[in-house]
Amino acid sequence: MRASRFFISTLKEAPSDAEIVSHQLMMRAGMIKRLGSGIYTYMPTGLRVIRKVEAIIREEMNKSGALELLMPVVQPAELWQETGRWDKMGAELMRVKDRHGRDYAIQPTSEEVVTDVVRSEIKSYRQLPLNFYHIQTKFRDERRPRFGLMRGREFTMKDAYSFDRDVAGMQKSYGVMFDAYVRIFNRFGLKFRAVAADNGAIGGTGSHEFHVIASTGEDALVYCPSSDFAANMEAAEALAIGTRGAAAQAMEKVPTPGKTKCDSVAELLGLPLSRTVKTIALTVEKEEEGKVSKQYFMLLLRGDHELNEVKVGKVAGLAGHRFSTEAEIEEVYGTVPGYLGPVAPRLPVTVVADRTAANMADFVCGANERDYHLTGVNWGRDLPEPVVADLRNVVEGDASPDGKGVLAIERGIEVGHVFQLGTAYSASMGATFLDENGKPAPLQMGCYGIGVTRILGAAIEQNFDDKGIVWPDALAPFELVLCPMGMDRSEAVKTQAEQLYAELKAAGVDVIVDDRGLRPGAMFADWELIGVPHRVVIGERGLKEGKLEYQGRRDAAATAVPVAEMVGFIKGKLGR
Amino acid sequence: MRASRFFISTLKEAPSDAEIVSHQLMMRAGMIKRLGSGIYTYMPTGLRVIRKVEAIIREEMNKSGALELLMPVVQPAELWQETGRWDKMGAELMRVKDRHGRDYAIQPTSEEVVTDVVRSEIKSYRQLPLNFYHIQTKFRDERRPRFGLMRGREFTMKDAYSFDRDVAGMQKSYGVMFDAYVRIFNRFGLKFRAVAADNGAIGGTGSHEFHVIASTGEDALVYCPSSDFAANMEAAEALAIGTRGAAAQAMEKVPTPGKTKCDSVAELLGLPLSRTVKTIALTVEKEEEGKVSKQYFMLLLRGDHELNEVKVGKVAGLAGHRFSTEAEIEEVYGTVPGYLGPVAPRLPVTVVADRTAANMADFVCGANERDYHLTGVNWGRDLPEPVVADLRNVVEGDASPDGKGVLAIERGIEVGHVFQLGTAYSASMGATFLDENGKPAPLQMGCYGIGVTRILGAAIEQNFDDKGIVWPDALAPFELVLCPMGMDRSEAVKTQAEQLYAELKAAGVDVIVDDRGLRPGAMFADWELIGVPHRVVIGERGLKEGKLEYQGRRDAAATAVPVAEMVGFIKGKLGR
Repeated sequence: MRASRFFISTLKEAPSDAEIVSHQLMMRAGMIKRLGSGIYTYMPTGLRVIRKVEAIIREEMNKSGALELLMPVVQPAELWQETGRWDKMGAELMRVKDRHGRDYAIQPTSEEVVTDVVRSEIKSYRQLPLNFYHIQTKFRDERRPRFGLMRGREFTMKDAYSFDRDVAGMQKSYGVMFDAYVRIFNRFGLKFRAVAADNGAIGGTGSHEFHVIASTGEDALVYCPSSDFAANMEAAEALAIGTRGAAAQAMEKVPTPGKTKCDSVAELLGLPLSRTVKTIALTVEKEEEGKVSKQYFMLLLRGDHELNEVKVGKVAGLAGHRFSTEAEIEEVYGTVPGYLGPVAPRLPVTVVADRTAANMADFVCGANERDYHLTGVNWGRDLPEPVVADLRNVVEGDASPDGKGVLAIERGIEVGHVFQLGTAYSASMGATFLDENGKPAPLQMGCYGIGVTRILGAAIEQNFDDKGIVWPDALAPFELVLCPMGMDRSEAVKTQAEQLYAELKAAGVDVIVDDRGLRPGAMFADWELIGVPHRVVIGERGLKEGKLEYQGRRDAAATAVPVAEMVGFIKGKLGR
Repeated sequence: MRASRFFISTLKEAPSDAEIVSHQLMMRAGMIKRLGSGIYTYMPTGLRVIRKVEAIIREEMNKSGALELLMPVVQPAELWQETGRWDKMGAELMRVKDRHGRDYAIQPTSEEVVTDVVRSEIKSYRQLPLNFYHIQTKFRDERRPRFGLMRGREFTMKDAYSFDRDVAGMQKSYGVMFDAYVRIFNRFGLKFRAVAADNGAIGGTGSHEFHVIASTGEDALVYCPSSDFAANMEAAEALAIGTRGAAAQAMEKVPTPGKTKCDSVAELLGLPLSRTVKTIALTVEKEEEGKVSKQYFMLLLRGDHELNEVKVGKVAGLAGHRFSTEAEIEEVYGTVPGYLGPVAPRLPVTVVADRTAANMADFVCGANERDYHLTGVNWGRDLPEPVVADLRNVVEGDASPDGKGVLAIERGIEVGHVFQLGTAYSASMGATFLDENGKPAPLQMGCYGIGVTRILGAAIEQNFDDKGIVWPDALAPFELVLCPMGMDRSEAVKTQAEQLYAELKAAGVDVIVDDRGLRPGAMFADWELIGVPHRVVIGERGLKEGKLEYQGRRDAAATAVPVAEMVGFIKGKLGR
């Protein structure tokens, strides 16, 4: 490609609505252009990256035996009604009526359509397993679109759907996709981590997220550096810290006026925060025969620990819980928030203690009386043994659940997700096959997504500096830029530029020659901003010594390379 | 590809709603699957063809200097309101509201968005010319979707938009695109014709349509076999037939009771139809200072000729015309439809005669009296000379407007369109650039579309037989199918099949081996229906003589080819 025939449009300043670095740099590099809230045109430079992402995904999906098809963007509401998602999905699902008043969804994902395709095509177990995927435009009407391609409304996604005859088959298909994803993210050249995830609302029996590691990432990833344990914060199991010691103190009520937080209580009492316990009051409403009854729960956590709401929802009896209101707290505990505690509540409540809180002795908690806490509290002696559950977020240094070391935490950006769906969709849509005995059975499904356009944002959040983007070779809009200095003045430079350009193209290098006639500073600034990973400068002075200047995007200085060796040198840099 | 790992799903019968052969065959071959009215999933076999179409388009567009970007499917209404198309387009434009109640269009085309991109990016004539294209999903809410991919609602289209500083530049860009289209359709391997077209509602100054030739085509294409004249029926100029002879008969009123059509009048009078003239009464309403006034026109055509409404609309004074009502005909001519004629109407009317009708002598026309016609009518003698205009569709045998022969007519399916838009969009959207004198000028635009998914239907309408589809090599889902006979019984067949499969893949042939273990009849029927253009059969009997059977999809019989020569033989067939 010649820069004079390409469309390059860089900006010195990012627009003010670009809050994060990847959004700022993509706008400044002219890769995307805003059309509306969360809706972008992918300009030629940006589209080149998208096509590279897509090509790698496609190759690895095909290699794994998945078959590409293309499902529509506009999908009849009837299918979404069959699974109940037409109602469940709320305002995020963009809905549209046609000229006859019929309802359609603009697809945010395609479980319904693929299940509809398969239920009419698959008759027998002999046709299984099967894995269909597509790379398609999707729309999610986000409440607050932002961060450029990271949380846009219109985006491109690869979604794949596997169909198997039994759970073992589904797990095998899942494993094949997991391995394909590892190959895909390795080929992208991004640092990433696959973590176990909670299955959430979609249901099913197992899932992993693929995260691009970046200090700016929204998600906390938990992993064990000395084993292969990795999970997201929602899913990472927190083991008990320590073992319960013997009671050494008597329980005592102490005045703590105005101290409603564990840290201020600990400070007042001159104790470490880890000697305190915080109490969270929950209410679960149940309706039976038209009557609503309320059950009250008290959750206990060590003062320095954080509640994990996903884990709370999994405790027996706590599905559908909510935080208790102040009125309920007054009624049940006879006090105000900030002084709650598990000792002798006014009404009967179920006390659920986190594993670590359940292991504590001589601890401090609220006294169920305004301006008072209890010290020296001990399970079994001062109050009954609690229900014990994993309720908290892990912290750095926790023991790894696999017993093989201690946990570390890093930040990540979710760009892929693999799910074991089981029969969540096939059952509601009647997608069955005939098994070996001629009996209908529901298809066992898996689904597997990669946010194609999101990859761009995530890759930049991981790879940038103060000059701009630093693309990994595999994703760069161009692998190499050739910068001739004074091409219009120097015949020698021009001839060498044309020759090297031709040789690099012949060697399969994705090269752009900057023949725009810009001054060196402006030329270099453009390519550093755009993030082309390799640069060769052709100058008259160097040519006199038979040399060209190579500089990697992250290199501090240039390397002089003899003209005749440059193509081989570049191939070496690109690992070819 | 191995057929056992691909998804092949053929049908003996097409669904009853498939009216035309391409729709029937695509459904039977399992290339598409209906999701809703005019909305299809492209199944793996169909998507392979689409990808081949897209790849050829992309290569030739890039070669011509056009730059690929990707504009959104969901587009803000504001842009469509700027050009007035939000109101003009009616129900075909699919409209959607987001969660905040803002209006969006699901794009049927992208003139507005690309003009918006360019008006903010282009400052100077130095940045021109520029040509942006994308290949994207589009939606048109057709009143009556049918014919499968030929008139679907969701479809894929390549649309390109050129931007130039002046008309000469626009025409040059147009010529570059025209040439690219010729290369594209040649590479598809389809018989096609580029014809001059009317610019229609989109406005502008010149356009051509690209049609795939097919006897089932909706459109009539006019061309001159001995020159390069070609136009669609709307645009093809009709010259006068013959020259006017001298009057030889006296005008006479003859009774023609119940004969309201030219052919029945001619039959009654024992004259050729070409001696009759038909009269069409039109009304044009004009509003001035709140008052509506009516003007009446009479169009005259030779009895065997057809009116061309596009041409009528271009006659001075006839913009906005409509057919006169029976009440108006009674008022103006004092008679009923069927007996109208240009001689002595009751009220003053403008008589416009087609060039050929204006050349007639001693002709027959209505007498403006029920059950009577006039014979021996002559211009100048019996009535004033008419306004003369081209009003009719050409017919086979007409003189070519370029004076180089006579016209022929064939049927075609429109799959591409190139337009000179001029400033139709740039003016309404304020898309200007600064010219050499630093003055703002509107961009001169062209637009260029190819119906990607429609190509599939058109290619099939041109290439099928009673067994199924006959793809040209360049578009076939697979170039060649390898059919081993009794692979499971014969080790020799299996070994040979695997070896040839590997060799063909290594030679770059897009080959599928049918390892499904079907019986020959069923296997062959599948591939003939799917339309794979080349087939090699591996059988035990042939192998004993060192031979394999090659059969082209259109060949009447198979050709025995020595095993060692087969790869070279196939490469020859594929022109490699």
